[in-house]
Amino acid sequence: MDAIEDLAIQPCTSSLYLRPFRLTYRQNGTKKFWDFMRTHDSVSILIFNTSRQCFVVVKQFRPAVYMCEVERQHPQLFQNQDKESFSRLEDPLPAVVGVTYELCAGIVDKPHLSLEEIACEEILEECGYRVPVTNLKKITSYRSGVGVTGSRQTLFYAEVTDQMKTSGGGGQPEEGELIEVVEIPLEDSMKFAYDETLPKTMGVIFSFTWFQNNIAPKLPKSNIKAP
Amino acid sequence: MDAIEDLAIQPCTSSLYLRPFRLTYRQNGTKKFWDFMRTHDSVSILIFNTSRQCFVVVKQFRPAVYMCEVERQHPQLFQNQDKESFSRLEDPLPAVVGVTYELCAGIVDKPHLSLEEIACEEILEECGYRVPVTNLKKITSYRSGVGVTGSRQTLFYAEVTDQMKTSGGGGQPEEGELIEVVEIPLEDSMKFAYDETLPKTMGVIFSFTWFQNNIAPKLPKSNIKAP
Repeated sequence: MDAIEDLAIQPCTSSLYLRPFRLTYRQNGTKKFWDFMRTHDSVSILIFNTSRQCFVVVKQFRPAVYMCEVERQHPQLFQNQDKESFSRLEDPLPAVVGVTYELCAGIVDKPHLSLEEIACEEILEECGYRVPVTNLKKITSYRSGVGVTGSRQTLFYAEVTDQMKTSGGGGQPEEGELIEVVEIPLEDSMKFAYDETLPKTMGVIFSFTWFQNNIAPKLPKSNIKAP
Repeated sequence: MDAIEDLAIQPCTSSLYLRPFRLTYRQNGTKKFWDFMRTHDSVSILIFNTSRQCFVVVKQFRPAVYMCEVERQHPQLFQNQDKESFSRLEDPLPAVVGVTYELCAGIVDKPHLSLEEIACEEILEECGYRVPVTNLKKITSYRSGVGVTGSRQTLFYAEVTDQMKTSGGGGQPEEGELIEVVEIPLEDSMKFAYDETLPKTMGVIFSFTWFQNNIAPKLPKSNIKAP
């Protein structure tokens, strides 16, 4: 995952993935506009392996995170990017600065499937566990990226066992996904959640905390370890 | 806030606010590219008013959230938007579907100020409390929008009192901000957090939960009410 080479950036004038729009409107009589992007709603899943009392999360190289760190080192980087030119990144930072820990997740782009069904597909594709839809418990939903995308994300909780593991996961290589499945032992999870040297999403921190409050107290006594 | 009129959308080919770039790279030998957007890091602040035992959050109309809901009603909306044309939204949804509850927050765009100083400025501008920097406690930081922006958000906790209130807050009208300050009583906060009919960010849900775990147990006994 860490073998990232030949990095170059260019301004992106047309993208299949980023579709910017402008909304114009009047609010209390004042004319305004706001630029936003169309995205899909999404699901994410806190996966807990009861066989080995660990959380199952994913780790991947995120170009957007990586470039934030590159810009932190080279604040002028994007200021010379007004023109249609490629810029090679000389002497690039190690790829690991762009690798983040995240919950298993996916976009909602199949109208014929329920959110639960999409969540189960993602668990199988990314983490390799075949989970029945009835194993999913909805935690809650919220708005992500309210400034730019505003889409709704629904967060689920799924318990899995080693017996449900049918593959190594890892995403869909044919779609360019390269995902590493990582297990976080329950007993280390709160330390992990608040370790800022390990880049992660708020979803990881929130869902681990939710588990401590809602699931951990109900675990068989022998399994409870001090967080 | 709810008086939103004359809505129209158009594709946005050039924006001061959304700056898309494309990173090309090779990962484990495979050539890839990823489209992302430059954004600033940000701070957000969980504000607790100890005088009245309530959280102070903000509420605002979010065009991106609103348009998600419009598209949910009219799935074809954005598919006819390939050309450079304005489309008026006829018979628009009520503005309230785009109004979200959020933590007080702001972008990090002043290199001469610390994160704490920027957080204090936002608390004053948006919520009207003048808070000393030393009142801020860092909760943690994480990555937001890992797919698109990847920026770092740092979450703070600030206790305020009624005596610190110097204005009504509400943001900077000259910059088009129209922000409503909302108080959520501590005793209602967990019910509020998980009420999906009230659109909100994960930051609200996570930080209220963090408070229950970390601050509530230390509150003077008489103030603790069952969540």
